[in-house]
Amino acid sequence: MFESASLAHRVDKAAYRRAEPKLREALLNAQYDLKQDGRFSVLILIAGVEGAGKGETVNLLNEWMDPRHIEVSGFAEPSDEESERPRVWRYWRALPPKGKIGVFFGAWHTQPIVDRVTRRISTGRFEQYMSEILRLERMLIDEGVLLLKFWFHLSKSQQKKRLRELEADPVTRWRVTAKDWKLFEQYDDFVGVCEPFVRKTSTGEAPWLVVSGADPRYRSLTVGRTLLAALRERLDDKSAVRPPDHTPPLPPAVDKLNVIRALHLDQALSKKAYEPELERQQGRLNKLFRDPRMRQMAVVAVFEGNDAAGKGGAIRRVTRALDARSYQTVSVAAPTEEERSKPYLWRFWRHLPRRGRLVIFDRSWYGRVLVERVEGFCAEADWMRAYGEINDFEQQLAQHNLLVVKFWLTISKEEQFRRFKEREKVAFKRFKITDEDWRNRKQWDAYERAVCDMVDRTSTNVAPWTLVEANNKYYARIKVISTLADAVEAALARVEEAGKKDKKGK
Amino acid sequence: MFESASLAHRVDKAAYRRAEPKLREALLNAQYDLKQDGRFSVLILIAGVEGAGKGETVNLLNEWMDPRHIEVSGFAEPSDEESERPRVWRYWRALPPKGKIGVFFGAWHTQPIVDRVTRRISTGRFEQYMSEILRLERMLIDEGVLLLKFWFHLSKSQQKKRLRELEADPVTRWRVTAKDWKLFEQYDDFVGVCEPFVRKTSTGEAPWLVVSGADPRYRSLTVGRTLLAALRERLDDKSAVRPPDHTPPLPPAVDKLNVIRALHLDQALSKKAYEPELERQQGRLNKLFRDPRMRQMAVVAVFEGNDAAGKGGAIRRVTRALDARSYQTVSVAAPTEEERSKPYLWRFWRHLPRRGRLVIFDRSWYGRVLVERVEGFCAEADWMRAYGEINDFEQQLAQHNLLVVKFWLTISKEEQFRRFKEREKVAFKRFKITDEDWRNRKQWDAYERAVCDMVDRTSTNVAPWTLVEANNKYYARIKVISTLADAVEAALARVEEAGKKDKKGK
Repeated sequence: MFESASLAHRVDKAAYRRAEPKLREALLNAQYDLKQDGRFSVLILIAGVEGAGKGETVNLLNEWMDPRHIEVSGFAEPSDEESERPRVWRYWRALPPKGKIGVFFGAWHTQPIVDRVTRRISTGRFEQYMSEILRLERMLIDEGVLLLKFWFHLSKSQQKKRLRELEADPVTRWRVTAKDWKLFEQYDDFVGVCEPFVRKTSTGEAPWLVVSGADPRYRSLTVGRTLLAALRERLDDKSAVRPPDHTPPLPPAVDKLNVIRALHLDQALSKKAYEPELERQQGRLNKLFRDPRMRQMAVVAVFEGNDAAGKGGAIRRVTRALDARSYQTVSVAAPTEEERSKPYLWRFWRHLPRRGRLVIFDRSWYGRVLVERVEGFCAEADWMRAYGEINDFEQQLAQHNLLVVKFWLTISKEEQFRRFKEREKVAFKRFKITDEDWRNRKQWDAYERAVCDMVDRTSTNVAPWTLVEANNKYYARIKVISTLADAVEAALARVEEAGKKDKKGK
Repeated sequence: MFESASLAHRVDKAAYRRAEPKLREALLNAQYDLKQDGRFSVLILIAGVEGAGKGETVNLLNEWMDPRHIEVSGFAEPSDEESERPRVWRYWRALPPKGKIGVFFGAWHTQPIVDRVTRRISTGRFEQYMSEILRLERMLIDEGVLLLKFWFHLSKSQQKKRLRELEADPVTRWRVTAKDWKLFEQYDDFVGVCEPFVRKTSTGEAPWLVVSGADPRYRSLTVGRTLLAALRERLDDKSAVRPPDHTPPLPPAVDKLNVIRALHLDQALSKKAYEPELERQQGRLNKLFRDPRMRQMAVVAVFEGNDAAGKGGAIRRVTRALDARSYQTVSVAAPTEEERSKPYLWRFWRHLPRRGRLVIFDRSWYGRVLVERVEGFCAEADWMRAYGEINDFEQQLAQHNLLVVKFWLTISKEEQFRRFKEREKVAFKRFKITDEDWRNRKQWDAYERAVCDMVDRTSTNVAPWTLVEANNKYYARIKVISTLADAVEAALARVEEAGKKDKKGK
């Protein structure tokens, strides 16, 4: 993997002086074209061995191009903001928008490699990290990101030479510490871990680009020209060709039965029975959120359902039970311009709760496999891959003790008609009914099909769907709040159990 | 994942009788169109819980369609032919050609699931299997295979009901054994393993299609219609559109140095020194291949190099040292029609050696990233993904104690000219030089670039490249045979070491 990069590559001063100005100009032009074009973002990962010029390269890119359109992110120890979220949250946060270049100095590859070199994780866990990285990068590429992964390499003797040189010069001596020499001793272990890593995380669309780091001029021209070629290739390809559809169609319905039609939508619950039960469940939920174990977890509640199924009403019955500082409700409508400029799931990652808190999504990332699928806002290949991406996303939350609770509120077509008519009649409800609602209603069967596929493909042990029979609002609200309370209660018990195991482990 | 499939789906007899003849006719037509079309093959995987109609479905497909163009493969215990090869060898062997349908009754998913249910493997290993499966299926899809994965499901109560019904009927009582009831007791464990498996190995291009197995008529129509829709979608899409190129260009050369130019091609070795040394190395190699430990491993030697670099001569010096029954030489030229009808690596998988044996590839799978790249026989995206596919392939060999030894024989451009001219002059050498050789020579720099990228991207700890300086044939032959002998010697020691560990483990 590192054969070429271990050679004594060099570019002499004169050649560099001739090449550099042209390259800078071309890079600047490409950068402005990218801004104009606005169809994709560029993400540059900077990785490799110590002393191979990673930091210098980041500085150089900033110097060569317009720094207003480059966003450099260095990832050192996670902040407490970050460590309260899943591992990849901070990378999502830093993704560049379309038209811009993001530079990640150390990213998702760093920790797994370090943990493996120091034997803190097993080869099995390391393999798992690599497969997660492959899935993440595949998603970014599918979302149109131009991903360039630079790996800076030094051979063992080159690294030794570099440390010696720095030490010999009184001006740079301070840069070499005992830690550097200790790292040098681990060189073989380090490269022994990096080799399979670079091999297994190199794909056709996102290969690692290994660069010899020993000679700064060689290194700089290599990175600059590679970046330029990649930018130009994508910018100059104006074809808006969609890839051929290799997505097989999902099985057609053969009988009339499906998970929605199997529900009995008219469940009985009188107002008289409802009111004390609501109070009881709200009290329970309130107590659960004040439990000290709650500080080790957080909750994400997703509300989806037919138009007029009573999502808002159910959400209010939940939030009324809670301290206003402990929850946030995110209403998902059309994405903002900023959100449209990032990969699809970005707008949801940004709203993830800190420890001890609840975030309620009133509509959610499932829009992609519901409205976007039915209305044709995205291609079949896009919503088909979304099931897997969503499952990965929710698993990342669950692994970080973020409980995901998902509700689909179902009403019958007749009940919806009744509610729509009522909304049109009652003045203070009129804002709730629009032409769009009537239009969506015409697509009833297509939505039903999409909901069934969604439940089948994203109801998982990690994050199951709860289907709520909602023709009777009282019944629906009690089912929602009690299901949520049950789930939180079970999650708190799991957190406690895991804590005990950890203690025993120590 | 199994929500819809757990419902009591049913199709009544009358409806089935109306639907079946039309479906059969349409399927037959699609099958003939597929044969005519010949652009892709279809691979159907049959998986799921016991008693859900897997076997019946396979029989049905055979009955409904023309069995001459369906190839059904059942994978039970591996034969000894099979167990001497890497795990996936038998699946490669059974891949259908373009224009045909292959049905795999149990495939790469079976063993990992069974091993995980019985706790014979850890979750880490299970995750690793899943990521290998994802890579394998991705490769098949990239190669144009239409992959349909059916998962047959029964809920726990449905499975119980089915076993009871079979037992109650004197005619079918024999089919229910104590083993079946034992399996039934493991139902929850089994589904607990299958759920994440189905989730994580479902992708946009190859989702698991979960089918309720309880009602045979429902099941049959679902499978038939799904297959029909998938066939028609692909057959009716006549666009020959290539996907947009999202492959970033590899780094351009910035200086004159590369792994080939760094070699000193003129190494000294006199004929007088060569002859006894050759004899010594041949004796060594012969002894190594007769070592009893050799029965636990096998060797794959790959010879690539410039035209006229002396591959044939070097290979003959190796084979002369060996018993003719213990080796096979595979000369790789243009693929046969059969080979062209299968995924790229198929033609190499078929030649893998059994235990104790050596297979020599005179040119190899590297053709894809050499001649096919340089001559534009395949798209950039295809040769770019080939590096990863080749690394996966060689790792599968290595994991199965198949030692992979790879030689690139290098001569200088001047030396090649001299040898070409000599071949033209000497009558018995004339068959070795063609117009194509002169044509290839004009692409010298492009080939050199391709060789450097190949070495960088496929020289791994698992299967390193050995670059052989070959201007002097004597030197080259000794380097080849001694490198091979060293590698075999080291591999035999590893086999012995692993054997000792296994014994200790027991």
